[in-house]
Amino acid sequence: MSVKLIDRYLSEFISEHEYQNIQPQVSAAHHLLRSKSGVGNDFLGWVTLPEDYDKEEFARIKSAAEQIRKSCDIFIAIGIGGSYLGARAVIEFLKSPNYNNIKKDTPDIYFAGCDISAASISELLEICEGKDICINVISKSGTTTEPAVAFRVFREMLEKKYGKEEAKNRIFVTTDREKGTLKNFADKVGYQTFVVPDDVGGRFSVLTAVGLLPIAVAGIDIDMLMRGARDAQIKYCDEKTENNDAYKYAAIRNILYRKGKTTEILVGYESYSRMMNEWWKQLFGESEGKDGRGIFPASVIFSTDLHSLGQYIQQGMRNLFETVVSVGNSGAVFTVPDDPDNIDGLNFLSGVELDKIKKIAMQGTLLAHVDGGVPNILIELEDRSAYSLGYFIYFMELACAVSGYMLGVNPFNQPGVEAYKKNMFALLGKPGYEDIREQLQKRL
Amino acid sequence: MSVKLIDRYLSEFISEHEYQNIQPQVSAAHHLLRSKSGVGNDFLGWVTLPEDYDKEEFARIKSAAEQIRKSCDIFIAIGIGGSYLGARAVIEFLKSPNYNNIKKDTPDIYFAGCDISAASISELLEICEGKDICINVISKSGTTTEPAVAFRVFREMLEKKYGKEEAKNRIFVTTDREKGTLKNFADKVGYQTFVVPDDVGGRFSVLTAVGLLPIAVAGIDIDMLMRGARDAQIKYCDEKTENNDAYKYAAIRNILYRKGKTTEILVGYESYSRMMNEWWKQLFGESEGKDGRGIFPASVIFSTDLHSLGQYIQQGMRNLFETVVSVGNSGAVFTVPDDPDNIDGLNFLSGVELDKIKKIAMQGTLLAHVDGGVPNILIELEDRSAYSLGYFIYFMELACAVSGYMLGVNPFNQPGVEAYKKNMFALLGKPGYEDIREQLQKRL
Repeated sequence: MSVKLIDRYLSEFISEHEYQNIQPQVSAAHHLLRSKSGVGNDFLGWVTLPEDYDKEEFARIKSAAEQIRKSCDIFIAIGIGGSYLGARAVIEFLKSPNYNNIKKDTPDIYFAGCDISAASISELLEICEGKDICINVISKSGTTTEPAVAFRVFREMLEKKYGKEEAKNRIFVTTDREKGTLKNFADKVGYQTFVVPDDVGGRFSVLTAVGLLPIAVAGIDIDMLMRGARDAQIKYCDEKTENNDAYKYAAIRNILYRKGKTTEILVGYESYSRMMNEWWKQLFGESEGKDGRGIFPASVIFSTDLHSLGQYIQQGMRNLFETVVSVGNSGAVFTVPDDPDNIDGLNFLSGVELDKIKKIAMQGTLLAHVDGGVPNILIELEDRSAYSLGYFIYFMELACAVSGYMLGVNPFNQPGVEAYKKNMFALLGKPGYEDIREQLQKRL
Repeated sequence: MSVKLIDRYLSEFISEHEYQNIQPQVSAAHHLLRSKSGVGNDFLGWVTLPEDYDKEEFARIKSAAEQIRKSCDIFIAIGIGGSYLGARAVIEFLKSPNYNNIKKDTPDIYFAGCDISAASISELLEICEGKDICINVISKSGTTTEPAVAFRVFREMLEKKYGKEEAKNRIFVTTDREKGTLKNFADKVGYQTFVVPDDVGGRFSVLTAVGLLPIAVAGIDIDMLMRGARDAQIKYCDEKTENNDAYKYAAIRNILYRKGKTTEILVGYESYSRMMNEWWKQLFGESEGKDGRGIFPASVIFSTDLHSLGQYIQQGMRNLFETVVSVGNSGAVFTVPDDPDNIDGLNFLSGVELDKIKKIAMQGTLLAHVDGGVPNILIELEDRSAYSLGYFIYFMELACAVSGYMLGVNPFNQPGVEAYKKNMFALLGKPGYEDIREQLQKRL
């Protein structure tokens, strides 16, 4: 199995009968999800996506990626939130957090439109000078401020550089299937378009064209990514937690939350996991953080953060639990060199593989944190492969949906995201927001 | 003033009398700190460091940085925790989070020894192929596992590449002033050494050689950085919170914590702030997270994270508060281009500066979150300069010390960091740990 949940380190925190007692709630959540009768049931496309995704579009994604790889030095993915995090996370996990600095036969990849920053957009324009560029704008509506501004900038750049005709071949649009201004515009001009499905929310969209096109450009095997997700879809069907690790993870989270463990820290042991942790933070935080409830999602990368947040986790407030994601085979092998001077006293490690030391550091830390009163859930990924990562992504999406239903919220909406936008538009003087503008300005 | 605390958005959460009522505790913390009579008083070197730092060493740092810039393409800083975060944070903040990808006349900079990873060390060795390299190993004792292993690897690489003699000119050691195996070895071989002061803990060390050498290599004006810190040192002396923003910040944190606001989110609005936020997380988390207490430090970068954690912050559990760090002048100017097609409906923004939109997004978000029940502290930095950042660093260090004393902990130790190390050494079979080894192995 590609993903395995280890609950052994929870024994001091959760008794056997607690799992039994919460099973009816897991079953209820399971039935809501599978019968599509729960709140947010318009957004369940991701559940069966790994099997029934659009095969024709999938083939077009692969050939567009091939075309992009051949025709540019730099590929810019323009998107924010779910239209950004998944792709970046998968690329960093499977390739490198230093992807743009390693030797490779695929283009450099930059992400734009995920902030409002003169500094970052100016810098990226400078990096692009003298290079061949392709862009992929990813936006359901085409009207979200950050990506829309970036699309204006980089479309203009491409049209100046290549002329309108050639620019067409370098602009790829991922947007609504049929409606929306971006879709209309793309069809009018003649850009190749891909679909943000109606029934898949942003944070569940990494395995649609939203994530897959940039991931494929990076040279990642998206067939294997989908196959991993599909095998997870088949695997995690049983409603009983003893047969379903994704449900068990959801159950554990809800048990711990109700005991006052209100912050969950996702722990990685490699810098390549950092953005996957960010993806997970969006997935769970946006799905569960509503109606005054939800576990606060945080993340660390050990061992580096053992020397920053480690102290807090070991001895600070006891409202925490950790979920440790351990990746079995990273593909790299490196052993500690011997030092005849032994200045650091580490010759007892000479010849030992770093991955073995990392694993032991993980085990030692886990026991130390448990002894400090922090429940630890361990999730093992078999290896650092597209297949295992696809499996893991599905595991987390499913666990998140079930966990949200157990919490009693709609795991598929994000009503709170509108609040800042409304204020921002009003303060920016957008037509239609005049009434609240003055009111807000008085408070600044 | 370079750093300004705005408490206006707290009025719904903290009444005027609460500031008055907590002043005696601020004063008590102030006297503990200034009279050096509190716990941890062996580690107060950072308090007067911006004035009484070693001027001779400072000059050597500048000339070593000059030498490094001239003689290498890649500079590797080897360190973990406080021997890593500060330098990286300052370089990303003042230069770029994409520092290694921008055009510049200073070396690329990589950080090693902050993890245990075959993948990252193999990758860095590959990136170094065919390049000229200098390294700076930063470790008080020289025996911390992660940096010690990296130092073995890169010292070997340099000695193979250049021979032992020339390698000497390319290895810079920041360590204890006189004792310790690394210091002894460096003196024996003849490396240039810099000092990790005895009375400055890792998380307070960014303005010592620990941070300054890598920062200077990046071409940052370390004189201005120190001048900003010195002016802050002069500024924040008064014990009254109405005259001392650093103390006021400490007071606010303690008031909110005692009302159940147990998680603080440091908010930045530029990706260049991300690592400064990580530095801050270590500073506060490691100083306060002990004896079962302390505010849990988290961090976000808006607007990107408004589309991931924004939902939770707006409507999730109400145990949060935010501290927003707003940077006045980023140095870059960029205006939204006009689009004759206006496909995104954003022509009302045509010609508007991005930094203005960013500021309004910040204001709109702040009001939205306050309306959602999240207290917001606003800290304004005048600009993105070495001077303002030095000022900010001192502000935070001082606030942290006073906040820790108000909380009733020793803000300068980190006893919990040993727990994982002990377990790791035992499981790795380090001599001297045999007794607990078996015990731990049974639990795995």
